[in-house]
Amino acid sequence: MNNKSIANISMAVIRRLPKYHRYLKELLEKEVYRISSKELSKLIGFTASQIRQDLNCFGGFGQQGYGYNVEELYNEIGKILGLDKTYKLIIIGAGNLGQAIANYTNYERSGFELIALFDINPKLQGLKIRDIPFRDIDELEQFTNENYIDIVVISTPKEVAQSVVDKLNIKNVGGIWNFAPTDLKVSDEIVVENVHLNESLFTLSYLLNERELESKK
Amino acid sequence: MNNKSIANISMAVIRRLPKYHRYLKELLEKEVYRISSKELSKLIGFTASQIRQDLNCFGGFGQQGYGYNVEELYNEIGKILGLDKTYKLIIIGAGNLGQAIANYTNYERSGFELIALFDINPKLQGLKIRDIPFRDIDELEQFTNENYIDIVVISTPKEVAQSVVDKLNIKNVGGIWNFAPTDLKVSDEIVVENVHLNESLFTLSYLLNERELESKK
Repeated sequence: MNNKSIANISMAVIRRLPKYHRYLKELLEKEVYRISSKELSKLIGFTASQIRQDLNCFGGFGQQGYGYNVEELYNEIGKILGLDKTYKLIIIGAGNLGQAIANYTNYERSGFELIALFDINPKLQGLKIRDIPFRDIDELEQFTNENYIDIVVISTPKEVAQSVVDKLNIKNVGGIWNFAPTDLKVSDEIVVENVHLNESLFTLSYLLNERELESKK
Repeated sequence: MNNKSIANISMAVIRRLPKYHRYLKELLEKEVYRISSKELSKLIGFTASQIRQDLNCFGGFGQQGYGYNVEELYNEIGKILGLDKTYKLIIIGAGNLGQAIANYTNYERSGFELIALFDINPKLQGLKIRDIPFRDIDELEQFTNENYIDIVVISTPKEVAQSVVDKLNIKNVGGIWNFAPTDLKVSDEIVVENVHLNESLFTLSYLLNERELESKK
């Protein structure tokens, strides 16, 4: 795998990689060490040709007549996703959603290390989640001046999300994982990945109605 | 808008509709009643031609030289998304994430009415969120026999998600909003919308690494 090849991969392919990674992990857990693109296709739901095409973007791991070495492919995709590295995270907005993310220890196992939680609620001050103390939002600016943060999780209400982001020292921030139902304005240097739950729910309501209309035809 | 036109819209267009809906709502809140595709493009970040093309899928709402009537477009997109109707929701798995969804009252305002919460934790029994009582997971089967549920939210751990889904009376379920990091096996009649947070986080780590490689060139 060469670095040059990484940069020109379409987002559609990239978004499928974590799914390959998850299925390969499950295969390893079941002690399956070798799989054909056809078998992988049955499992994961993409066509075999889609799978071959996707994996070819990164140099191609399969061998004609043998299929894929599950462990090798799992490790390589992990590396492509950057899961061989570690990332420092902070969470801003520690309501139910922020706390759900803070408590999800699987992220820690994948190399995402939570180092601080910020919230405006004075009742949280002095409390901890997994030994990580809640800090007041007023400490945020100084904290990002003093610490490099790979990923800032925004799980504040929509109304304050932008003002919180504006307090970050962006030179010390890699990317933002944004759960607030708004599009943040940030410097182009910062990578933003949005999880807009509203949009997902409204897509579901669309699909429910589409199906109903289809069934009435 | 005729029903026939709805069924053949690509998922890519459909997934953009909630975003149009959100921006149009914000325009209405700012008392902006008319907007050109060019102005909407600046705001929302899609190209003007993309916007015209998307909205043409549903019959086209704009008028040459006038632009779009914001309120009309907002209402029409709301109808297309099915937001003029109401939906009964239940949440299965009331940990932090399930409770975050239960507490997010904006869904209620958009017509998504939470009617029950199920969890295995005996400590939750007898408690309520917004007057909705927690029920034991053992009551789930009977509840879905007796009530039609438009949307079942799955926010259980991965390991139990499928077994919980298998308890549902699928004749009485419209769709599933799945937050468990696994792909559920369900009848084709059921619409499933996944929110795989892991996949989103791993996409972010990919993008952080891609940017780092780019900056080293």
